[in-house]
Amino acid sequence: MKKICLLLIVTGLILTVGCAQQKVQRYGSVIGVKEDMLEKYKELHANPWPQVNKQITECNIQNFSIYLTQFPDGKYYLFSYFEYTGDDFDADMAKMAADPATQKWWKETDPCQFGLENRPEGEWWKSMEEVYHLD
Amino acid sequence: MKKICLLLIVTGLILTVGCAQQKVQRYGSVIGVKEDMLEKYKELHANPWPQVNKQITECNIQNFSIYLTQFPDGKYYLFSYFEYTGDDFDADMAKMAADPATQKWWKETDPCQFGLENRPEGEWWKSMEEVYHLD
Repeated sequence: MKKICLLLIVTGLILTVGCAQQKVQRYGSVIGVKEDMLEKYKELHANPWPQVNKQITECNIQNFSIYLTQFPDGKYYLFSYFEYTGDDFDADMAKMAADPATQKWWKETDPCQFGLENRPEGEWWKSMEEVYHLD
Repeated sequence: MKKICLLLIVTGLILTVGCAQQKVQRYGSVIGVKEDMLEKYKELHANPWPQVNKQITECNIQNFSIYLTQFPDGKYYLFSYFEYTGDDFDADMAKMAADPATQKWWKETDPCQFGLENRPEGEWWKSMEEVYHLD
């Protein structure tokens, strides 16, 4: 009986550690994509470079999606959503920006994009405000 | 020894069922929000009705976020991201649309919004195309 109790406690601990809801900060942002670069942008992101994905993961970003849509004025926009699980977002972003593969990747992707004119200084993707969340 | 083995197997099963990556379909969409209704919309979503949240969860939607941003032309837009874990999205959406509390909620929120003119027929929030995802 003692053994069973002990194993049930161990099970409980494993479940707690393994399944516990991670501390997560969510980020949503927006940027334009040039119509004549749309196909290039989509192809790059349909086949992302493994080193770039690896770097994103190592910088504590998970569940990262980018969506594309056309607005009524004919322009195209990208919307990104990701979750950050680290302790120092700025430090992790600096680490990402220092990665040679990521720098090379951005040399491909940046010319496909146009920043929103009203984005805050220092931003490329414009940060959005979270107004609702339900786990 | 037999008991320990049995309990380890049970532990394994519990972990598998409890922690297994759920089958998830992700949805991203966009809609406009009227400037003069912005504060009302934000206030509603800062204090969502429990019955509405409950209905969303019961319709197999999780990790649901809505972001707000202003575009350079001065107009405001909302971007939503959620994950669907059920087996029949259309049936679950019909279930949600039949819920009286949700209908009452939409009577509050719909007049705050304006649909994108180029959205597909039958949509209110315009669906976006996923062009990138990293778990």
